[in-house]
Amino acid sequence: MLKIPEHQVAGHKAKDGILGPLVDDFGKFYKPLQTNKDDDTRGSTELSFYTSLAAAAHDYSIRSFFPAFHGTRLLDASDGSGPHPHLVLEDLLCGYSKPSVMDVKIGSRTWHLGDSEDYICKCLKKDRESSSLPLGFRISGVKDSISSWEPTRKSLQCLSAHGVALVLNKFVSSNNINHDDHHPDCAFATEVYGAVLERLQKLKDWFEVQTVYHFYSCSVLVVYEKDLGKGKATNPLVKLVDFAHVVDGNGVIDHNFLGGLCSFIKFLKDILAVACLHK
Amino acid sequence: MLKIPEHQVAGHKAKDGILGPLVDDFGKFYKPLQTNKDDDTRGSTELSFYTSLAAAAHDYSIRSFFPAFHGTRLLDASDGSGPHPHLVLEDLLCGYSKPSVMDVKIGSRTWHLGDSEDYICKCLKKDRESSSLPLGFRISGVKDSISSWEPTRKSLQCLSAHGVALVLNKFVSSNNINHDDHHPDCAFATEVYGAVLERLQKLKDWFEVQTVYHFYSCSVLVVYEKDLGKGKATNPLVKLVDFAHVVDGNGVIDHNFLGGLCSFIKFLKDILAVACLHK
Repeated sequence: MLKIPEHQVAGHKAKDGILGPLVDDFGKFYKPLQTNKDDDTRGSTELSFYTSLAAAAHDYSIRSFFPAFHGTRLLDASDGSGPHPHLVLEDLLCGYSKPSVMDVKIGSRTWHLGDSEDYICKCLKKDRESSSLPLGFRISGVKDSISSWEPTRKSLQCLSAHGVALVLNKFVSSNNINHDDHHPDCAFATEVYGAVLERLQKLKDWFEVQTVYHFYSCSVLVVYEKDLGKGKATNPLVKLVDFAHVVDGNGVIDHNFLGGLCSFIKFLKDILAVACLHK
Repeated sequence: MLKIPEHQVAGHKAKDGILGPLVDDFGKFYKPLQTNKDDDTRGSTELSFYTSLAAAAHDYSIRSFFPAFHGTRLLDASDGSGPHPHLVLEDLLCGYSKPSVMDVKIGSRTWHLGDSEDYICKCLKKDRESSSLPLGFRISGVKDSISSWEPTRKSLQCLSAHGVALVLNKFVSSNNINHDDHHPDCAFATEVYGAVLERLQKLKDWFEVQTVYHFYSCSVLVVYEKDLGKGKATNPLVKLVDFAHVVDGNGVIDHNFLGGLCSFIKFLKDILAVACLHK
């Protein structure tokens, strides 16, 4: 039985006749290969990325940042258009009951020189209008399944540095329901961002040396589970997702992703520092 | 007695009636404040940067990356237009007799959101056509005063990753005269790039945390002196220059500069690794 993922915060959603990802009960995530136009290479780009990854990232410590890949499968598409090829991936949210989820698109630039002029213009406009250009990343989606706090995607896009910091604070707070009234308590900041920063530091180390891939429009997905009763946060997870715009690094590091990643790290470190002061 | 600097590799040169920098015999570098149009804020931006720096970078280890600043002075302009305000700076090349000099403009993006649409278009075009966008930096000028190797600025702009690596190899070689015939020997790679990388690592550490300034169109200047007789390189120097497009960081790290700096570091590390293998 395939279902629509319950906690997807960014990307196309499989509802209202739209082609989107599906999950099963056995921990698999089925992502439709994006091939809606003749010149649409997103699906093939993402497929080649997953098939090349095993060879390019020998080190398990690096592969652990990517969802496990189990080939492709023809499935009835969620939009009712009949059989459609899907990537079979690990369902990263399998095992979480009420996860807190955040999707952070990394990089001040979401386009590359090989893109069409039209696509570059579209992306550049969005990068300039969103926090991507000033901050080096933008929050594409965020959700707390317990409090049902889930800012609209539109409200997230145009956040200032201050606004982004506030969302990042709320993401690790126990009082984010009445989000306009309460100062976020950052109850889970040390547990969650402590673990997340440890992972991001490893990712950064890799990006300082890897020259195989450049990741455009790729996201860091952050997940954890709150236990409000015990006042604890469990199972923090950091993964990279969305590789429809990955290109060959040609011997150069991905300075666009690395710069944005360092900016995101700095935001989390600042929150962690304040949280530690208050402990 | 003011003279035209002998070893300037980038920027406006004070000759043929052009307004450019001058030096004296006492280690001072006089840079004309750029104010050629009413809306030209470059001069005032650079002046505010220098006056704010002492307060912003308390740490001498950081201030040591910047030329010392000694105020402003009205001087007869090099273009014969009469008295013009000049920044009085440290002449970084004072003390070198036959320096090797390289100016590397850091960052894949040389413009920021506060710039005019015209200026953004002009910069974006140049960033796309040069190595800035793909590599995160571009070599604006390079010169070996002994061999007289000095590629034209135009030839440097459109270099590929391979071409940039070749220039970086030649910069630390003793045989860069017949540059089309010889494989560069990288005779000074370990001495020069070893020392340069140590400095750049310190600079990187600062850029990972400083949120006061964003440096657009700013360069890393690398200088050293060759002693071909003794087969030694002396006085390696790493400084930041050109602050006409520095803006407030607004609490965000300069991810654009940091990404490009990390890319430049990776190029030098690769050259150093090969040079160490051959020793």
